[in-house]
Parts: sequence; structure tokens; C-alpha cells
Amino acid sequence: MADNGKLVKEITSMEDDFAQWYTDVCVKADLIAYSHIKGFMVIKPYGYAIWENIQKLLDARFKATGVQNVYMPLLIPESLLAKEGELVQGFAPEVAWVTSGGTEPLTERLCVRPTSETVFSDFYKDDVHSYRDLPRLYNQWCSVVRWEKETRPFLRSREFLWQEGHTIHATKEEAEARTQQMLNVYADFLADEMAIPVIKGRKTEKEKFAGAEATYTVEAMMHDGRALQSGTSHFFGQKFAEAYGIQFTDKDNKLKYVWQTSWGMTTRVIGAMIMVHGDNSGLVLPPHIAPVQVDIIPIQQRKEGVLEACRKAEAGLIEAGCRVKVDDTDKSPGWKFSEQEMRGIPLRIEMGPRDIAAGQAVLVRRDNGEKTTVSLDSLSEAVPQLLETIQKEMLERATKHRDSHTWTAAGYDEFKDTIANKPGFVKAMWCGDQACEDKIKEDTGATSRCIPFKQEKISGVCACCGKPAKYMVYWDKAY
Amino acid sequence: MADNGKLVKEITSMEDDFAQWYTDVCVKADLIAYSHIKGFMVIKPYGYAIWENIQKLLDARFKATGVQNVYMPLLIPESLLAKEGELVQGFAPEVAWVTSGGTEPLTERLCVRPTSETVFSDFYKDDVHSYRDLPRLYNQWCSVVRWEKETRPFLRSREFLWQEGHTIHATKEEAEARTQQMLNVYADFLADEMAIPVIKGRKTEKEKFAGAEATYTVEAMMHDGRALQSGTSHFFGQKFAEAYGIQFTDKDNKLKYVWQTSWGMTTRVIGAMIMVHGDNSGLVLPPHIAPVQVDIIPIQQRKEGVLEACRKAEAGLIEAGCRVKVDDTDKSPGWKFSEQEMRGIPLRIEMGPRDIAAGQAVLVRRDNGEKTTVSLDSLSEAVPQLLETIQKEMLERATKHRDSHTWTAAGYDEFKDTIANKPGFVKAMWCGDQACEDKIKEDTGATSRCIPFKQEKISGVCACCGKPAKYMVYWDKAY
Repeated sequence: MADNGKLVKEITSMEDDFAQWYTDVCVKADLIAYSHIKGFMVIKPYGYAIWENIQKLLDARFKATGVQNVYMPLLIPESLLAKEGELVQGFAPEVAWVTSGGTEPLTERLCVRPTSETVFSDFYKDDVHSYRDLPRLYNQWCSVVRWEKETRPFLRSREFLWQEGHTIHATKEEAEARTQQMLNVYADFLADEMAIPVIKGRKTEKEKFAGAEATYTVEAMMHDGRALQSGTSHFFGQKFAEAYGIQFTDKDNKLKYVWQTSWGMTTRVIGAMIMVHGDNSGLVLPPHIAPVQVDIIPIQQRKEGVLEACRKAEAGLIEAGCRVKVDDTDKSPGWKFSEQEMRGIPLRIEMGPRDIAAGQAVLVRRDNGEKTTVSLDSLSEAVPQLLETIQKEMLERATKHRDSHTWTAAGYDEFKDTIANKPGFVKAMWCGDQACEDKIKEDTGATSRCIPFKQEKISGVCACCGKPAKYMVYWDKAY
Repeated sequence: MADNGKLVKEITSMEDDFAQWYTDVCVKADLIAYSHIKGFMVIKPYGYAIWENIQKLLDARFKATGVQNVYMPLLIPESLLAKEGELVQGFAPEVAWVTSGGTEPLTERLCVRPTSETVFSDFYKDDVHSYRDLPRLYNQWCSVVRWEKETRPFLRSREFLWQEGHTIHATKEEAEARTQQMLNVYADFLADEMAIPVIKGRKTEKEKFAGAEATYTVEAMMHDGRALQSGTSHFFGQKFAEAYGIQFTDKDNKLKYVWQTSWGMTTRVIGAMIMVHGDNSGLVLPPHIAPVQVDIIPIQQRKEGVLEACRKAEAGLIEAGCRVKVDDTDKSPGWKFSEQEMRGIPLRIEMGPRDIAAGQAVLVRRDNGEKTTVSLDSLSEAVPQLLETIQKEMLERATKHRDSHTWTAAGYDEFKDTIANKPGFVKAMWCGDQACEDKIKEDTGATSRCIPFKQEKISGVCACCGKPAKYMVYWDKAY
């Protein structure tokens, strides 16, 4: 084993090859392993523990708004999928089809759910009768399958884990409010827990979800300046209700169709977290999400009293509510430092005989490398505070990075030049015509990320065609 | 709406038709709904909240033994499934096959996982190199698909939710100990949290899991006397290790195959809970599992002060750590009582103007109907205590029921007569020959449930063939 403080498992630097750096981190920080089917990955204990923390925090936020969890069938009959024309057109090219069960061919083929609007609608049709039954605010945590051509861990895989919320309401206003409410839940969750700032806005017609009347999105910027759609919330109007016959008797005794929403966030946000916060030593985890927040590394651990002092510090920190471990393996301290850095553990505590004799420990922040010396007596107060400081400053740093990589472009030459040479978001005006979106994508590789709720006026005309502008739009190359 | 205290949604009585009573409870207590594919059910919010509680309590017990959660691919290539001959023979007749992805046929068909020994083995093969990497104690919570012919909610469905633990070890002893340890986790969980007593034992060769060297089981008795296998733990020896090539370098520097286990518990235990504790008014939930433990029902709720007093009691009970709700809907108290009974909420608190004036409330236990009057001041102490009493007495009652429905039979006539006329377990001696198991099943419909760890000597000879006996076995008709 190497003993020079460098982990053998080295990773490509982000400046050399950001894509390779990303997959290196996924594998070498022990988040995933590749399986024997393209696009299907194994989420290893460390990766899954991150997902469990995400689930726990996000689920609590859902439940606080009255959402209830359910479980819907994995398989969907083709005829049921086909009832809503736009949805089936959007998803048919990318579903996996089950054609036999046991030794016998099926009379109707079944797809592995790519998303569950259809099964929820089919269920709600029989579940809801009166306005008293509304709203229904259901969510499920599950896996879905979409037969993607290009696949990358977390970002685009043929199977991924997610939650999908599906709600139905008596009125349009209530459904629209829920769509917005869940978008805000995502934005707040990403900022508060994952230290990822986002732009909230509406997708263009071209980019919206198949079958939706409107799709709202939270868009994050990765370290390389590219955009990642990190959560979406859809307003369906009465489309599914009409296609599937979800009706209720309203207070006025009239039979009406319900108003519907859906909203989802996936394991993709783990990819976002890696690409927003990671560095050339590996993962950097926000303390709220980190499975282990504090790694206590003994120096000269065989010396009398060292491990005992580490254990005592650990006990105090557990008491204080921290997720902490002592690394008492027989590896060298330098090796342990590298592992802690690769795995993105937010805080390292170094404790050697001299530190202990002096009644202190050395704290090293993962996010910025800052070292401080803290007395052992005050660890239990200092560490939780420092973790909150790290959490806060990670969000500030990501926000600063995003803002300093957000450009404006008025004319088309400036637009093309910015996309080509300045990684990041480009704010530019748009006429609302899909032809301009298509041309921009063709010319630059950038897509419209969203029409942000916070509109600004960069100019009066579309950056692409020069016709009168309708909206300011965020554009970027995206994952 | 009916106002006579009887819920409109009436259920069949268990004495008239136990099977119909069971499905009535599943549907009318709002646990599930049928979907449009045979054997695939919708788990509704109330049913899913029960599963979430089961998951939370069981997962904590797993983690306390060092188990880590992971996520493995949903789909398994046919060639991978086929590597272990017994397993594929056991499962091939009941898997669902995916034959196309997107618009193209697959070059190799993929099955939807019926169980994941194969994918875990394939993963471990590359994940483990040295004895330092062992043991691996992984588990996943997921859904699986088995194309059953006969289906019933929770008990036997084509898709079900479960956890599957898969561990690998350096030594046989360690793997065997883990198999036993997890069986004990299941037995303790069922007793302590679900108030279900079980018999622990080993399955016969005929009844063991395809591919296992030994299968251990926890067997519970339902209210109608039938058995339900409620959790299993398998010892695989080195079979999968050899089939999939999972090797490691041991301390002695030799390359060796790992020793393997797997163990699983499913949504089936919800079925067990219904059939062990339920009655003709519906579900009866053990307090540890109940999503709502206490239902406060106001009497004359429009009278001044009633709802306020209910809310105050609710706040105190939340403070005391109870899961509690006030039913302030505009239904009649009788209707609310019926609903609370149907949903198996362990404790009802009735609070009317006269109770409140007298500074007291009426507590009604769901499990035995017992009423007590408690002063409002002491609710926060009395209710948590009463919930623990209910939890304890439910286990005692179920144990008593089981023990009073456990028979012994020495000769074959006695055996057949007992199975035919006395619902429950029959303890009888067995020679160890599968021919006798087959004959017993043919003649009586009963199967060997397990060779219990606690052996007794009923006689010296096999109850079926009269040859010398090897084991005492529990026999019963089963779900």
C-alpha cells in the first residue's frame, strides 16, 4: 500500500476531463459499480446511504404538505399506457416490454413503468367519487426504467430510483398551486440540504413533459458550467382526467373532471451534488446529506491513550447528534486522509499524542481545507456549529460560482460566442418560436433550460431571430 | 349515510368465510385496491404507512447487526440467472421476461428479478478480493415479480415488496451464524413489534429454497389455524460462490470460495398481522405498527369546548410520543367508531361535554373492547402505558391461541383426523423420507412447516410410515 498520503485510486483531474473525473468519482468514492447490463448500475452502500438521507429529508418535506405514500404496480398494460396519446408517444420509444410471464406468452404486453401517470389515473378513476375525496396527494418511491441510448451513472441510466408524486384536485387553481408548491419544496430542499442553488422556471413547449400542459423545473449549474435539470413539477390540466375518466361530483352536484399534477426527483440529484461540490480529491458532501459527517483519524494510534481519546470524542459527538466514526483501521494516517477526502466526509478530526496531551484536536474542513485547532472540551459544541457553517458556505460558494458563470447575450453573435467560450448559463431574450430554439440547439448545442419566474429585460428582441421578444430564457448546454 | 354506529362497508364474518373476511378487511380497511393486472395490487396510503413502519423497525434491527443497504438492478440477463442450475429451475417457471427495450428486440431476454442471489453474486465476484473485504452484509428493499397462478392480496401476489439480505463470509461457521442471527431478528421483530409468536425451525429438503443448502423459517399460526411462513433465512454453502466465481485470498494466502446467506421478509407479514389479530369488526393493529395509535373522537363536537379539549389531549399525546389524530369530520360518532374499529386503531378516546366537565375521557381498547375512564390530567402517562399493555397482551393472546391450537399425533389415523378436524399445528414424528411428506400432502393437504429447533419426542416412529423417526415436525395446511 502507498503510504505517502495519496490514495492509490487516483482520479482524473476535472480540468483535464470533466466527464472522466465524474465517473472516476462515482466509482472510486464507492458510490456505484457497473452491472452486466448497460445502463443498470449497482448503488453501493455509500451511494445508497446518501440516497437514504435524501429520501428521509425530502419525504419529511412532502409529508409536511399533506402528501401520503403509496405503491403502484411495476407493470403497465399497453392498452392502459396508450390511453393518453401524447404520453405514449413520448415514452413508447423508451420502455422495456414484458412479453411472457412464467412459461407462457402474455395476451397483452406489459411495460415496466417509465413513469406512472397512467396507473395513478386508472386507480384514481375508481377511488374518487365526491369533492369530499379531494384532493388526493399521493407519492411513491420506486424505480423506473427508460431505455436510454447513452447512459451515465446517476445522470442518465436505464433504471433509476426516484419519487413520483401524483395529485388530483377539484379546481384548476388548487392544482396549479400544488404544482408550484412542490417546485418550491424541491428548490428549498436542494438549497437547504444539498447546498445546490437553482433557477426556478417554466419549460418551453418543446422541452415540457409529454402530456403536460405546463412543466416547471429547477435548474442547477454544474462546476463545468453545464446545466442539470434537477426536479420537475407538471400541471396536466384535465388531460389525463378526460383520457382515463377521473370524475367527481362537486358541491354543486355536477359531475366534473379532476385537475392533476405530477412531480419527481431522482437519483440524478446525486450526480448534481457530485458535479456542483466535488473537486480533484473526490467527493465533497454537504453535511446534511453526508452519511458520515465527521471522520476522526487517530495519529500514532498505537500510542497509549490515543484511541481512547478518539473514542471519547466520538461518544461526545454522537451525543451531540453528529454522524461520526473513528477510523481505527491499520492504514496509515495519510491513506486515511485520502480516503476521507475521496468520500467527501465534511470534517476530519486529527488526534495524535501531542494534541491529546495539549487537550486539543485539529479539525480540517473538506470543502476548503481550512484547519483549526479546538480544545477537546469544546468539540461537542464546536463541531455541530462548524458543520452548519460548512453547509451554509457550500451553498454560498455554489451560488457565487453560478452567478459568476451566468452571462447575458443580446444579439446572436454574442450569444453563440458566449455559449462557445464562456461555460455557464446565458440569459437571452426569445420570441417564443420553437424554430429559434431548434436553430440555437443546432448552432450551439445549447437548449432552453427554462423561462425563469424572475424575468429580466436584456433587450426587446429575440437573440436569435430579432423579432419582438416574449420572454427572457436561460440557455445552456445540459446533462 | 348510516347513522347507527355500523359502518356501511360491512364485512363477511370470519366464521362464515375466513377467506372472504380476509379480502374484505384488506379492501375495506383501505389497505389495498386491485389493479387492472391480475396479481398486481395498489397499496393504498394506510397499507403503505403500515409497511413504512415495518420497514423502519426492521431496518433498524438489520443495521444494528452491521447490515448495509444497497440497490441492485431490476432486470437480470437470462444467462446470468442460468448459472446456478437449481435456482433457475426453481424460478424459471415463474418469472416475467422482458424481450424488447424501446423499439428494438433485445439480443438476450432479461427477467424481472424474482430474487437477487444471481445479481448479488455477480456483483460480489468483482467486489471482493481479500479476507479483509469480508464479510459483506448487504440488503435491499425493493419489489420482485413472480408469476403466481393463484393470487391473494399480500399473501401471494405477482409483484410484492420485500427486503432481501445477501451476505458473504470467509468461513462456514460465520455464514451459518449469520443465517441463524437473521432468523432470530425476524422472530424477535415479529414478536416484539407485530405481536406475532412464531415457531423457528428448518425446512425439509422438499420445502427448502431452490439452491439453498438449508432454509430456516419462522412459522406463524393464523386465526383459522392455518400456517403462514413469515420469513426465511437461507444458508447457501459455497454453491453460488462456485457457480459465479466469488473467491477471495484468505489469511493463509490461499484462494477460497466465500460462504453465502440470504434472508427475506415481505409484505406478506401484513397478511399475517391481519389474520392473527383481526376480528369481525376489521383490522386490529399492534400499537408499534399502527400508523395511528390513538383516535380521539369528540362526542357532540359542536358543543363549546369539546373540540378544544380534544385538541389539547392530542397535543399532550403527541408530546408523549404517541401517533394520534382527532377525528373532527362531520360524521356521527357511531360512524367514526366503526371506522376506527375497521382500521384497527389500537385505542379510541371518547370525549364529550360531560366527560370534559368531569375532567375525564373514556378509553376503549380495540383489541378487547375494554373501557376505562381516565382523568384528562393523566392521559399523557396513561395512554402510552396502555398502548404497551395492548402490545404485550396481543402477543400473549396470539401465543395462547397458537398453543391451544397445537396438537400432537402419534399414528396416521390420529394425524389425519387431527388435520381434518382440529385447525392448527400438528406435531408429529417423521422418518425424514420425502415419500411420507408427499403422502401426507396428498392425503390431508397439510405440508411440513418446519423441523423445529426445539425438538420433542412424540413417539419413536414416523406418524406416516411407522419406520424409525428422525425428527419431530410441525405440519399444517398453509397459506
